[in-house]
Amino acid sequence: MDKLNLHHPLFATYAIAASLMILKGVAMSWLTVVRMLQVNGGFRSPEDIKKTPVNPNPSAAQLAPNERVERIRRIQQNDLENLPYFLVAGFLYVLTGPPLLLAQWLLYGYVATRLAHFAAYFTGQIHDIRAALWTPGSLILIFMAGRTLVAALGY
Amino acid sequence: MDKLNLHHPLFATYAIAASLMILKGVAMSWLTVVRMLQVNGGFRSPEDIKKTPVNPNPSAAQLAPNERVERIRRIQQNDLENLPYFLVAGFLYVLTGPPLLLAQWLLYGYVATRLAHFAAYFTGQIHDIRAALWTPGSLILIFMAGRTLVAALGY
Amino acid sequence: MDKLNLHHPLFATYAIAASLMILKGVAMSWLTVVRMLQVNGGFRSPEDIKKTPVNPNPSAAQLAPNERVERIRRIQQNDLENLPYFLVAGFLYVLTGPPLLLAQWLLYGYVATRLAHFAAYFTGQIHDIRAALWTPGSLILIFMAGRTLVAALGY
Repeated sequence: MDKLNLHHPLFATYAIAASLMILKGVAMSWLTVVRMLQVNGGFRSPEDIKKTPVNPNPSAAQLAPNERVERIRRIQQNDLENLPYFLVAGFLYVLTGPPLLLAQWLLYGYVATRLAHFAAYFTGQIHDIRAALWTPGSLILIFMAGRTLVAALGY
Repeated sequence: MDKLNLHHPLFATYAIAASLMILKGVAMSWLTVVRMLQVNGGFRSPEDIKKTPVNPNPSAAQLAPNERVERIRRIQQNDLENLPYFLVAGFLYVLTGPPLLLAQWLLYGYVATRLAHFAAYFTGQIHDIRAALWTPGSLILIFMAGRTLVAALGY
Repeated sequence: MDKLNLHHPLFATYAIAASLMILKGVAMSWLTVVRMLQVNGGFRSPEDIKKTPVNPNPSAAQLAPNERVERIRRIQQNDLENLPYFLVAGFLYVLTGPPLLLAQWLLYGYVATRLAHFAAYFTGQIHDIRAALWTPGSLILIFMAGRTLVAALGY
């Protein structure tokens, strides 16, 4: 059995979940760009208020934090605090040879809660809702890393 | 020999170190939550000062940076600047087939210095101590990535 | 065929690109240190203005943001928003068994544009140039993750 074969159900499950999360993470960069263009501001570097074809009428105000841009940056930062760990924890977890159904629940469940967390954060839902949608993903992460640890310690 | 078998000593060493670092990284999110509850502040989003069951008496002051929370955020940011690279560098490094004892020293040494770095940062030790505890981990990272590069260039 | 063998051209291509990006990412931490020593400031923690052998004449001004340091921090943050995703997306992509030449163009192309992006950011080039150098890398990321997703969904 080739554990890293994309035709292997367990590894395919991981690869699907990982690809979706990577695409989601990368989308945050593009969303930041879209928002910066929309508000014509929210920039960060001094050179960003030089006159260029893309920024023909620069002003110092463009370097001030803009909430519409900052919201996406916070969402992106939340991704950075979670997705890299998920990408490795999920990989190691499927190598422990878990039941396929459990792996699907955990990996796709993680993806689903992260997308729901994004929707809640993006639309400015109250903190309680955001926290409720962040928590299951974090618990899945802890479970997968813990399971890997136990399996590896038993060698 | 199956290089990705958790019963293989080299890969198990990596999996143990990686799992511990993932659990450590995820713990920073929970520690941030604990601190925000303790100080009832250090929030970041405008919607976090809406009245909710968890925040029955909101105030604008809750959005101000709080040093007890900010300290954990800085520790977490330091993790983000180091752990994702470690998780991949360590994986590639064990694939180069190093001596087990050397791999154990490097991977467990990395984990040990990161935990010591956390303890120093958490308790506000002077910068010199923090730097002394960060440096060996960063050098281990450079060594593992450099060793992988040399091995891969020789194909 | 051992897909994770560093003598396998596809995997070696990935390992070379990944190692270079890890070394580049880690270098940002060291560059931050160099800049903090150069300007004797740009620190972030209250304890960093305690009198120590490395900081014999501390002052509160050392905690103020310093543009020469902040520039490196922004470059590093840009790395964190990109490299961890690349490290996993590139790994999964080579497991889909792409043509070697295409994989080399994508993986080495990513490395080349990231190094060019660094050079532009480091020297304060206008935003239009920086954006033009960031975009191909992000598109490569999206392509590799999308290709992996399609391959994994077809299992």
